[in-house]
Amino acid sequence: MTIGKPAAGPSSGNLFAPLPDAAADEHFTPLLARPGLRVERIVSHGQASPPDFWFDQDEDEWVVLLAGSALLRFADEAAPRRLLPGDFLSIAAHRRHRVEATAAAEATVWLAIHASAPPTA
Amino acid sequence: MTIGKPAAGPSSGNLFAPLPDAAADEHFTPLLARPGLRVERIVSHGQASPPDFWFDQDEDEWVVLLAGSALLRFADEAAPRRLLPGDFLSIAAHRRHRVEATAAAEATVWLAIHASAPPTA
Repeated sequence: MTIGKPAAGPSSGNLFAPLPDAAADEHFTPLLARPGLRVERIVSHGQASPPDFWFDQDEDEWVVLLAGSALLRFADEAAPRRLLPGDFLSIAAHRRHRVEATAAAEATVWLAIHASAPPTA
Repeated sequence: MTIGKPAAGPSSGNLFAPLPDAAADEHFTPLLARPGLRVERIVSHGQASPPDFWFDQDEDEWVVLLAGSALLRFADEAAPRRLLPGDFLSIAAHRRHRVEATAAAEATVWLAIHASAPPTA
């Protein structure tokens, strides 16, 4: 996707409170946006990527799990990685991946940094 | 400061383990660097800004406290803000601020995003 006009996130707040009820749908909260940079909180509650669906993103992503747990699978790895609070991963653009599971009994909170700034010469 | 050549952070890890002993000095761990973007973990343990010292940064900063606690003071506010886990703040470039205290009895872990990308037309 294209990162267009920067949207302002809140100037302060807390990532864990209030925590939206994500049982029905994952929640995405923009936190910071600049040209080539987008930071968001994602709250999951039991969601997983659809069967056989793979994310194939144009941007690099850096993601940290801050609460809950998840299984994240890269297409080029045999087994999913289990992510617990504090675990972070860099996901290069176009490295195919999927979320195989998020915790069913509690909210999983992610902070995701999407970076599309091209390297400067 | 100038953000120069991007430095690669680790491709995966955990923000809380291993946790460096920051009792003597704060620890700064680069996590992600791009032109105009720098993400780092900061581990403090009782440190505060020197008396009468104010940060006056050329870059915008977005910071979230993930463990411990801190008092952060803006020069344009009468009282410091108490930060607890999950609390985040946007600090605009050149908005003077200082860290009045970090927890003495435990590590304080911050994730800081420094963004200097100029808006594109």
